[in-house]
Amino acid sequence: MTKTLKQYQELRDKINAYRYALSVISWDSETEAPAGCFEHRARQIGVLSAELYKFQTARETALIVNRLYKNRNELDPVLKHEIEQFKRSLTKIRKIPMTEFVEYRKLIAVSTKIWEKAKNAADFSLFQPTLEKIVAFRKKFVKYLETKKLKGYDVLLDDFEKGYKTKDYDAFFSVLKAELVPFIKKITARKLEYDDSFLKQSFPIEKQKAFLDYLETVLQYDRTRGLRKESEHPFTSGISTTDVRYTVHYYEDDFTSAIFSAIHELGHAIYEQQVSRELENTMVAGGGSMALHESQSRFYENIIGRSKEFWKQHFPVLKKTFKKELKGVKLRDFHRHINTVKASLIRTEADELTYPIHIMIRYEIEKGLFSGQIEVKDIPAIWNARVKEYLGIDVPNDRLGVLQDIHWASGLFGYFPTYALGSAYAAQIYRTMNKDFNVLKSLKNKNTEEINLWLKNNLHQHGASKEPKALFKAVARGNFQPKYYLRYLIRKYSKIYQLDKQ
Amino acid sequence: MTKTLKQYQELRDKINAYRYALSVISWDSETEAPAGCFEHRARQIGVLSAELYKFQTARETALIVNRLYKNRNELDPVLKHEIEQFKRSLTKIRKIPMTEFVEYRKLIAVSTKIWEKAKNAADFSLFQPTLEKIVAFRKKFVKYLETKKLKGYDVLLDDFEKGYKTKDYDAFFSVLKAELVPFIKKITARKLEYDDSFLKQSFPIEKQKAFLDYLETVLQYDRTRGLRKESEHPFTSGISTTDVRYTVHYYEDDFTSAIFSAIHELGHAIYEQQVSRELENTMVAGGGSMALHESQSRFYENIIGRSKEFWKQHFPVLKKTFKKELKGVKLRDFHRHINTVKASLIRTEADELTYPIHIMIRYEIEKGLFSGQIEVKDIPAIWNARVKEYLGIDVPNDRLGVLQDIHWASGLFGYFPTYALGSAYAAQIYRTMNKDFNVLKSLKNKNTEEINLWLKNNLHQHGASKEPKALFKAVARGNFQPKYYLRYLIRKYSKIYQLDKQ
Repeated sequence: MTKTLKQYQELRDKINAYRYALSVISWDSETEAPAGCFEHRARQIGVLSAELYKFQTARETALIVNRLYKNRNELDPVLKHEIEQFKRSLTKIRKIPMTEFVEYRKLIAVSTKIWEKAKNAADFSLFQPTLEKIVAFRKKFVKYLETKKLKGYDVLLDDFEKGYKTKDYDAFFSVLKAELVPFIKKITARKLEYDDSFLKQSFPIEKQKAFLDYLETVLQYDRTRGLRKESEHPFTSGISTTDVRYTVHYYEDDFTSAIFSAIHELGHAIYEQQVSRELENTMVAGGGSMALHESQSRFYENIIGRSKEFWKQHFPVLKKTFKKELKGVKLRDFHRHINTVKASLIRTEADELTYPIHIMIRYEIEKGLFSGQIEVKDIPAIWNARVKEYLGIDVPNDRLGVLQDIHWASGLFGYFPTYALGSAYAAQIYRTMNKDFNVLKSLKNKNTEEINLWLKNNLHQHGASKEPKALFKAVARGNFQPKYYLRYLIRKYSKIYQLDKQ
Repeated sequence: MTKTLKQYQELRDKINAYRYALSVISWDSETEAPAGCFEHRARQIGVLSAELYKFQTARETALIVNRLYKNRNELDPVLKHEIEQFKRSLTKIRKIPMTEFVEYRKLIAVSTKIWEKAKNAADFSLFQPTLEKIVAFRKKFVKYLETKKLKGYDVLLDDFEKGYKTKDYDAFFSVLKAELVPFIKKITARKLEYDDSFLKQSFPIEKQKAFLDYLETVLQYDRTRGLRKESEHPFTSGISTTDVRYTVHYYEDDFTSAIFSAIHELGHAIYEQQVSRELENTMVAGGGSMALHESQSRFYENIIGRSKEFWKQHFPVLKKTFKKELKGVKLRDFHRHINTVKASLIRTEADELTYPIHIMIRYEIEKGLFSGQIEVKDIPAIWNARVKEYLGIDVPNDRLGVLQDIHWASGLFGYFPTYALGSAYAAQIYRTMNKDFNVLKSLKNKNTEEINLWLKNNLHQHGASKEPKALFKAVARGNFQPKYYLRYLIRKYSKIYQLDKQ
């Protein structure tokens, strides 16, 4: 056993080193690598992925993992969980033929660039052949991975959020569709009155950066273990617990975009930074699941970050940073602005209330794609029709429609639903947190230390050392129930929109 | 043969992919990675290097290379040369025990951070134990690598510049010592008269950046295949011919530092960018040797970049960029400023004339270290004594003395001499170039296209596809002779310092 454990540790070190290299290359690629190198990089990523794949699926790897799996009850609980995970992913990965996997990775290494061009040209047809290839690969992989319990799209859903299937998401989204869509119609029929004249200005990027520096301090992001940069699409990269980086995108004419992107990504980043250092160099040192991760980013962004209590504390600093631009602007107006509900086109800029509807549209399309009811070429038309149906607006072009997200270009299907689930998780976790202390009152402090600490103790520290559903149950002290999310949304927006006062 | 070639190509792809990963990780580490992650990174680099090493020294690798080596006369000349190189490095690498190599790489992954701290504290004793470990490793490796023809320090010298030994450098430096040291004394005894009042200002970094953008266009650096960033110590990273990056360091109180660092690094970068695309994905797609590389950076920096003809064309743009700061400044004063000879402490900021003396000091210390005549603990005292002897100045502390360079902290011994050799190469190449066209006259053009093209045709395009000495002989149309370097230096500085007019 000692020998096998030593072999396993070497094996794990190797996998972690490959992943580290691929993470740094990906970070570099998304944030600064010159455009001209992308073919060369794609080739190198192809080779490295093939190596990692070969190694992960090697006979010796399987032998070591199987030996530990057999004796898993002798292992400490964290390692036991890790081995179970490994065994499961091994079973999966060994089902996909290596040559196909390598081809796929090569495709993905160039597909995001093609998507970017198509997006800039607002022309889905430029991206369609690539997306068709990606979907074909994914469908083939699904076939390889199907089990008695998991068929079709469920294979992908389970991959991103273990334990969640079409059946579960259908139940969740049907509640949203039944209750949220009409509520949104009621809200959007009203106009939130406030003075928005301050928005029609240019907000210098240097000042935006200065305020994000301040926000990092407020949210207690550890800058010695991370950094912030700019990219096309904001994201967080948890390279290790000592290296958690994130990006935003600055818009001179919309200063709140970078602020809320930053709070969102900082939610992810704080999660990764608060994972126990004891889990470093294991394979469970990151967040617990996609939905759990998203619950943290949404919690910081919306529940805390758009609350009046948060801005009571920090609006004066914001005004000081944009001294000229925000002169005379009232907290009430700012708070209303950042909580305005509006049927809109871009998911990442959607308000908290309409956000899950954007996800629902993507979920329905993905479900249709993998059941064979929808073909790639039909996606734009279906997309535009659903946006019209649920949000009542027209999509003027593909850039503002089907091409807005990088996910499908990266081969990520089954990922989107976890965003909505994450938002719902956040509301339920918030409810539990309030049983221990008054969260909004805690926002009077100069930083979010009390909140961070609670999340660290109840969720973050555990990393991915337990099953996602178990992690959620522990932090929320109960099973997932969509009603808490709905209740939170309806209460919050009824108040802001003063639905009771009519 | 076809099968072996295919196997070789796979093998080469793998090595290139590892090197690519390690290059990107190193670039990241030097330019932006958070301080807190360095232990984690060191571990990953250790694992990846071990993998690369294991793979390069594997029996199967040797079999493939040996098979091609045996049949090398059937290969095209480029591949033949590559195989010969590979065979040679294989013979070397297989002599070093893997565990020692991995330990060494782990040490190097953290040593530069320790050096940085010691440098900031201006305290050699903080770095001494680490340097002792590095030297001990290097000495052990030298022992493993010694052959009948190569002993001691020569092993390292040959590693960085094939064909050059202590005997060759001794001959080169003895000429410099005999003729340059007295010439420098003559020059530094004089004072170059010019109005330097414009220097005592603050030069905004944004404006410095704007001028470097302009310089990149002048030198025809292809920004779609590279980028510029900031780091502690300027360097160029030729990740591939389509990805050649460089760094500078900005000083608000010294705007010429970033300018000449940039021209220097752009010399390296243009070399890498002009390597034939046909060599991509081979193992000879980079520059031909250390000295050849340095000849290009020094050529652009000093021979072109500090000439009056270059600045006749570009000084107006510099003045426009620093409108306020350089108002009324005369070209004559600027030109004298950038060609002022001064015995100084920092190698990277030394003038063209005293520069090789800095190298000579390092060469003598390295030679002594590897012959056993000097111990690590004695280096600061020896360093300070030599600086006094050759340059006539006192070293106030280790930061401005022995700790100024990153090289030894990175394990690079035998590297420094190539810098001086490169400068000498540059002068001889310049002499040859002038036979084909008037180089200074060509600087009247708005960019250096004519010069770049000549260098591309005569040197750059070949990459490392031939022996370094053969590459030099082809571009210089003759063997290396130090006299051309001396003649160039004495002529140039006699004119600037008007030695004839006394």
